[in-house]
Amino acid sequence: MSDERILVPEVECPIGRAVDVIGDRWTLLILRQATLGASRFDDFRAALGISDNILSSRLAKMVDAGLLVKVPYRDERRTRFAYRLTAASADLLPVLHALARWGEAHTQPGGDGPRPMKIVHIACGAEIPSGEYCPHCGRDAERAETGWLRPWRSQSPFPLAEPVA
Amino acid sequence: MSDERILVPEVECPIGRAVDVIGDRWTLLILRQATLGASRFDDFRAALGISDNILSSRLAKMVDAGLLVKVPYRDERRTRFAYRLTAASADLLPVLHALARWGEAHTQPGGDGPRPMKIVHIACGAEIPSGEYCPHCGRDAERAETGWLRPWRSQSPFPLAEPVA
Repeated sequence: MSDERILVPEVECPIGRAVDVIGDRWTLLILRQATLGASRFDDFRAALGISDNILSSRLAKMVDAGLLVKVPYRDERRTRFAYRLTAASADLLPVLHALARWGEAHTQPGGDGPRPMKIVHIACGAEIPSGEYCPHCGRDAERAETGWLRPWRSQSPFPLAEPVA
Repeated sequence: MSDERILVPEVECPIGRAVDVIGDRWTLLILRQATLGASRFDDFRAALGISDNILSSRLAKMVDAGLLVKVPYRDERRTRFAYRLTAASADLLPVLHALARWGEAHTQPGGDGPRPMKIVHIACGAEIPSGEYCPHCGRDAERAETGWLRPWRSQSPFPLAEPVA
């Protein structure tokens, strides 16, 4: 984990600083997709239905803020960049989990699709209501053992992407 | 607590629905101030340095979404409205706490002012690192017993506003 902290001058409140960095709809949705393993421009675009210019602008801001890091990869014709989670953005998992719990409790999607989303301990399959502590195993679940069950997409939980070392 | 859930059509993911409702910088800052007890237009304006028209627009949207409720009060000359937390927005406390923890860990304010912000159990004075469970008392802290110590503002913790019944 990097020791570098994101500088947000003149904002004493840590909630205010966090909101200055991630208090944006697209930024939070990009973080959700990166947590689900998306890393390529086309992955984010396809999942979010976001325009190219807004996605480019958000990704660049997130790299500047230290939320994403560009990692080169080679496709068939040329070198491209993937956008991977940093230690700082991986640590936003409790924010995403709190949003998921609130969204399940206080909003509804309209249709009758399969739900709810559950945070699960992949090791044992049990739900982790807190997002951290597995009541079945009696211990905190590591990130690598945590998955998101999104039944409108798959009956198997999605493992969570790890940040770059 | 109201049984009414906020309708966010065609968004299966609860994180996506939450982000559609509260994934906005001003909305989150207004929620922070309301949690600290602000309820009047002038309270929000003074604390946030937000323009009148943006504040009006955000408050109206938050009332429509069920995050705030307008409660009449009488000032010296006429009836005005205060904006109070609902059961749904009071339940955003874990989101605010997760943002506070992340902001303390991964951002810095520039100056050398007193910090960090702490979530405290007012009953015993102990810090509540999780935002919920008081390790000193060995039990979950109710909202009414929870305070925010914001040392750049006060040496005493701020009690959290309760939602309207």
